Amino acid sequence: MNITVWNEHVHEQEGGEAARIYPDGLHATIASALSDLGSMRTATLGEPSHGLPPEVLSVTDVLLWWGHAAHDQVSDEVVTRVVERVWQGMGLVVLHSGHYSKPFKRLMGTSCDLQWRHDEVETVWTVAPGHPIAAGVPASFVIPEQEMYGEFFDVPPPDELVFISSFGGGEVFRSGCCWTRGRGRIFYFSPGHEEHPVYHQPEIQRVLLNGTRWAAPSATL
Amino acid sequence: MNITVWNEHVHEQEGGEAARIYPDGLHATIASALSDLGSMRTATLGEPSHGLPPEVLSVTDVLLWWGHAAHDQVSDEVVTRVVERVWQGMGLVVLHSGHYSKPFKRLMGTSCDLQWRHDEVETVWTVAPGHPIAAGVPASFVIPEQEMYGEFFDVPPPDELVFISSFGGGEVFRSGCCWTRGRGRIFYFSPGHEEHPVYHQPEIQRVLLNGTRWAAPSATL
Amino acid sequence: MNITVWNEHVHEQEGGEAARIYPDGLHATIASALSDLGSMRTATLGEPSHGLPPEVLSVTDVLLWWGHAAHDQVSDEVVTRVVERVWQGMGLVVLHSGHYSKPFKRLMGTSCDLQWRHDEVETVWTVAPGHPIAAGVPASFVIPEQEMYGEFFDVPPPDELVFISSFGGGEVFRSGCCWTRGRGRIFYFSPGHEEHPVYHQPEIQRVLLNGTRWAAPSATL
Amino acid sequence: MNITVWNEHVHEQEGGEAARIYPDGLHATIASALSDLGSMRTATLGEPSHGLPPEVLSVTDVLLWWGHAAHDQVSDEVVTRVVERVWQGMGLVVLHSGHYSKPFKRLMGTSCDLQWRHDEVETVWTVAPGHPIAAGVPASFVIPEQEMYGEFFDVPPPDELVFISSFGGGEVFRSGCCWTRGRGRIFYFSPGHEEHPVYHQPEIQRVLLNGTRWAAPSATL
Repeated sequence: MNITVWNEHVHEQEGGEAARIYPDGLHATIASALSDLGSMRTATLGEPSHGLPPEVLSVTDVLLWWGHAAHDQVSDEVVTRVVERVWQGMGLVVLHSGHYSKPFKRLMGTSCDLQWRHDEVETVWTVAPGHPIAAGVPASFVIPEQEMYGEFFDVPPPDELVFISSFGGGEVFRSGCCWTRGRGRIFYFSPGHEEHPVYHQPEIQRVLLNGTRWAAPSATL
Repeated sequence: MNITVWNEHVHEQEGGEAARIYPDGLHATIASALSDLGSMRTATLGEPSHGLPPEVLSVTDVLLWWGHAAHDQVSDEVVTRVVERVWQGMGLVVLHSGHYSKPFKRLMGTSCDLQWRHDEVETVWTVAPGHPIAAGVPASFVIPEQEMYGEFFDVPPPDELVFISSFGGGEVFRSGCCWTRGRGRIFYFSPGHEEHPVYHQPEIQRVLLNGTRWAAPSATL
Repeated sequence: MNITVWNEHVHEQEGGEAARIYPDGLHATIASALSDLGSMRTATLGEPSHGLPPEVLSVTDVLLWWGHAAHDQVSDEVVTRVVERVWQGMGLVVLHSGHYSKPFKRLMGTSCDLQWRHDEVETVWTVAPGHPIAAGVPASFVIPEQEMYGEFFDVPPPDELVFISSFGGGEVFRSGCCWTRGRGRIFYFSPGHEEHPVYHQPEIQRVLLNGTRWAAPSATL
Repeated sequence: MNITVWNEHVHEQEGGEAARIYPDGLHATIASALSDLGSMRTATLGEPSHGLPPEVLSVTDVLLWWGHAAHDQVSDEVVTRVVERVWQGMGLVVLHSGHYSKPFKRLMGTSCDLQWRHDEVETVWTVAPGHPIAAGVPASFVIPEQEMYGEFFDVPPPDELVFISSFGGGEVFRSGCCWTRGRGRIFYFSPGHEEHPVYHQPEIQRVLLNGTRWAAPSATL
């Protein structure tokens, strides 16, 4: 399986918590967590074609996407290329603030709005324990510090809902959602703020691994 | 529209909080809240055929079901009659501990297990704001005291998920769920413990009213 | 309820079968079939803002859309306005070759491709007999002449599948599909080629009427 | 992976076409087609506990079920055991007339009725080309002779619809359907009449293989 981890890689270069927690970028931590699955590649906003020229996308089985501060800087040409590769069968795993990325919004057909607030404890609950993305994931687990993402999350009703989160303020969020577009599978997973070491947490890495495998085209399994 | 509210009517006759809050039975409070919708009837466990002989069920458009302590005392003959009427098109609104009732378990095909605990604040969040059952229901509202029902709720993935609740302990629950069985529509709504005045709360009454209307056969609308 | 029927109104002005069958335009026939539902308005491509300026869309509860030859001539500004009104709660009923219209493709997030061929008998089968859109519609009915639309129909898996059609060549098509986007409901119904009197057929008119009522915001019902 | 193929094994012992086409029983042909997936076992109605004692079911990852003439002879004790194993995570692949089997009806919560007629050509269409069960299956393929199964098929709306069939008389049928019950996954596939060599056809064997793999608990993959 060929996996490409895309990260805008903006916050980590600005210093602060993000730089401290992810010194080589979020993408490096995520790619490392998935390395057992196959051949890993990373790509960032600053590279030519954002690191996603046709020759990279055409051999990518699953693309993971993390973006936040620079959604608008992603060229429409690359967005169209990503969307059309999903239609052809490429899996797409969209992370955290990627809910507002151009490819995700194009594929969902909705505003992808949500409620948010800083600094909260998040508890992730498995509501589809037989789903492949929940394999080996506990019935619930805690993320000690995380940005709060709350409902109403304006996405189409997911084809499969795997996780629901609650937050210290009593909010809830559909935090693990699956959709199909064309021949491609899309998994959105909301935990993963850049100022917290979320992607270092074993349960999170397990979900990413399961989600990437689930999103892969059948022929690669 | 012909509506029948079924209640086992056990707790309220045993005194205590249930008797104080619902002196005429939960069914009376619920029926009163729905009276604008059409012709109301109530039925209880203690009546012959539990108040649900064929001639009552055959003219019932929507049946609401509240049971808790006496699920096992409901005769299989009546259960089969209810299930078959749902298949023919009768709507069924299942409330709170009715998740463990015989008709609901038969229609779901699962164990209908869940986690539970006494005495918690519950916050209900609307996750399908355009759904008819959410009409006029706020984005979120609080039930000051309620029994906690938590995931994993072992039901088939709902065809439509309208509400998700959180609880003081951080638990979450898919509290408003829709399914279809045959020509009949089923709405499960979890708030409604007998020791708290939940069915006196306006937001709850609104959900019951919307849910009953949604579950009704199209010909009656 | 305020209903707007949009039609590109190209074929009917070019003479031929379309002009003969729909002398006042497809929109006139459709609007006439729905007139019991509320206040009707029609709009066409050739009008300023294609007949869909903000003041029209903002009071439209359900918009029906028929387009075929001139999808590209619909301005992106109007498309964005339609899409955002759907997100706010406006219902959208997309007809026949409207599967390839800009608003539908934007809301689906897929290519909306399908297979097609001229001149076939179509049989429409109800696969959700309890659904409001199937109310009063027979278990199956025949459209004597119709363009064949066949699978794979590249749309997201519908939230609710109401009708499946077969064609003389053995093809099948998911011909009646429901989705939600934001607070808005979308119903796609495939029968309706401009060279056949499909919209004069009583069963078709019944589906359009049911679909329009289903797509309407709850507050208008 | 441990796979058990259950067959009532009645028709093949009565002579006629079934005995000619499946001399060792349908289960032998099916088991042979799946042998690459793991350890195969077969079980039939006539064995003690119908070949499904607790010690067999407890180690079965996926159970395939073919029954037709003798549904009523399956003991309720075995049915309960099968249903509870599905809830725990065992996959279940239900074939053809197994739509009327006790375990399937218990898990669906509906009548599982359908329309039927002898001797028709069936064309199977893939409507979810990115689904793992469709991997390597053509966009459409023909079964030269098959019993007609037609809508309305009274099952809950499938969580995922993979195949739709048409028949020579113009009928349609949702022929490949997925559901989840508890932790277990259920795949129903309708082709497979005992009087036609359907299970010898390569496309059918491919679907059975994919469906069995899809239904397997994640831990076995």
